[in-house]
Amino acid sequence: MGEFELIRQYFAAAACARAGGDVVLGIGDDCALLAVPPGEQLAISTDSLTVGVHFPDRCDPYLLGQRALAVSTSDLAGMGATPIGFTLALTLPSVDPDWLAEFTRGLETMAAGCAMRLIGGDTTRGPLSMTLTVFGRLPAGAALLRSGARPGDLLCVGGALGDAAGALPIVLGERPADSAQASALLRRYWSPQPQLALGQALRGRATAALDISDGLLADCAHIAGASGVALQIEQARLPFSDALLAVAGAERALQHALAGGDDYLLAFTLPSAELPSLLDEGWPVHVIGRVSAGDGVQLLDSNGSAVTVSHRGFNHFKT
Amino acid sequence: MGEFELIRQYFAAAACARAGGDVVLGIGDDCALLAVPPGEQLAISTDSLTVGVHFPDRCDPYLLGQRALAVSTSDLAGMGATPIGFTLALTLPSVDPDWLAEFTRGLETMAAGCAMRLIGGDTTRGPLSMTLTVFGRLPAGAALLRSGARPGDLLCVGGALGDAAGALPIVLGERPADSAQASALLRRYWSPQPQLALGQALRGRATAALDISDGLLADCAHIAGASGVALQIEQARLPFSDALLAVAGAERALQHALAGGDDYLLAFTLPSAELPSLLDEGWPVHVIGRVSAGDGVQLLDSNGSAVTVSHRGFNHFKT
Repeated sequence: MGEFELIRQYFAAAACARAGGDVVLGIGDDCALLAVPPGEQLAISTDSLTVGVHFPDRCDPYLLGQRALAVSTSDLAGMGATPIGFTLALTLPSVDPDWLAEFTRGLETMAAGCAMRLIGGDTTRGPLSMTLTVFGRLPAGAALLRSGARPGDLLCVGGALGDAAGALPIVLGERPADSAQASALLRRYWSPQPQLALGQALRGRATAALDISDGLLADCAHIAGASGVALQIEQARLPFSDALLAVAGAERALQHALAGGDDYLLAFTLPSAELPSLLDEGWPVHVIGRVSAGDGVQLLDSNGSAVTVSHRGFNHFKT
Repeated sequence: MGEFELIRQYFAAAACARAGGDVVLGIGDDCALLAVPPGEQLAISTDSLTVGVHFPDRCDPYLLGQRALAVSTSDLAGMGATPIGFTLALTLPSVDPDWLAEFTRGLETMAAGCAMRLIGGDTTRGPLSMTLTVFGRLPAGAALLRSGARPGDLLCVGGALGDAAGALPIVLGERPADSAQASALLRRYWSPQPQLALGQALRGRATAALDISDGLLADCAHIAGASGVALQIEQARLPFSDALLAVAGAERALQHALAGGDDYLLAFTLPSAELPSLLDEGWPVHVIGRVSAGDGVQLLDSNGSAVTVSHRGFNHFKT
């Protein structure tokens, strides 16, 4: 038995690989088998992470395992789906049992938090990279698409923006990591928490939704484009964490929020009549702007003056 | 818009990316959405291919696209599933429009042949590699597992073995490619045809099945282990192509069939009462041995003497 066959068996024995629930058959045959309850549909998303591009070389494998699954699962949150499971295609330059144990522990931690199971995968030799494909279910017709935003809707986000981008200089060792604020940002970078419960709560209420992975402006442009509407973002309403403001200052915090990416929070549009009940139920809903007729994304600065921002236009903020 | 975003749009526009059928939503949102008909289950399999490991550098991108999808889809055939679609996570060192056009053309050719659609994916920068996740459906309880072989069953394969392994020296440029026989072997390596129709015909008839990817002995050991039985393979019954016998000779042909891998034909076990109707219907069923009580895989040579062959034991044939 080759060492990569041993790794397959190792993953098959991992705590997150047990069958049950909607997983009829997990690791070990030609395919995994999922049951989809009557009246429900299956949501599927794939993400690849490559060393040196999406994560630094020699990063903590436990944190990498957590982050890889969180990044992928966040797409299920953006559809309002209930997670079922995931496959992992892992390419490794060599077999390091300690690395594998820690990576798997990180995966298991995030999988347990998201109620997901590892249902299959592949293990090959090559430069370190991984592709995760995640599966969720949701009632037919209930998916939160990008295309349903309507003029008059509120534009909202699910939490404080820019923390992950603010953490990046710390991740790369360019800034010190020894403060409580730096630790808080690092947690948001390495262990983003997919907003699965919020996504499910938005079913039938939000008119459009996605998870913020490319930065607020770029992701809002996705909603605007798919829905055929314009989005206005009021700069003064953008929520920031105290940690980000302390580490990066107000101006860089704004840049991180608008263009940074990696937040893995939900952005969504909502008829205003839906807002009170969501707030009553305690969901983290921050109104940051609104939807109007037109196209593109506009940022309204603190003086109320508008700067038209295109999909590519956020270089404006990188000066 | 970055060049990798352009590639995403390129794939979204590919002929194999059109929605329809069981694909409720294809490329372009956070997730794809699949409908699974009532009473059916979803079969899922993931495979990674890395340059220098699974295919040579500078290989024909059209052939690579064909082969990548065929290799993955063969796992659906091994379960008896009806294909629905696939996701593609593609990692590229740089953007070469000619390469992409040819690769996509190869994907489209195989996708059309298998009635599959591209439903989503990811495109990232890094050393050339790809992970395909394929989706199929089949009636609940009808999947062809590895675990159902019973003593007395016949052991069968779906076609001539060893051609892909016989092609490998030609693929690697170690043997000439300029004969009709070499061309035939190269076709079997680059464009294996997943035995989807055969797999579906075996539902309710075969007791165990898989697709041969690791070589006949290793894959038969998977059936034997999962089913808790022994398999006897009669060497004289192994089917070979004229092309393989001409290029490799009888002895190497046997080695290729037993240990070579990459055939992507089905191996399956069958109550003998099922054989006549399958042959009447014209399915390519070759009986190569039988199932008995015990464990492991035995090869019976042309003299009728048995050589016990373990999962690792086929080094015996590599002398």
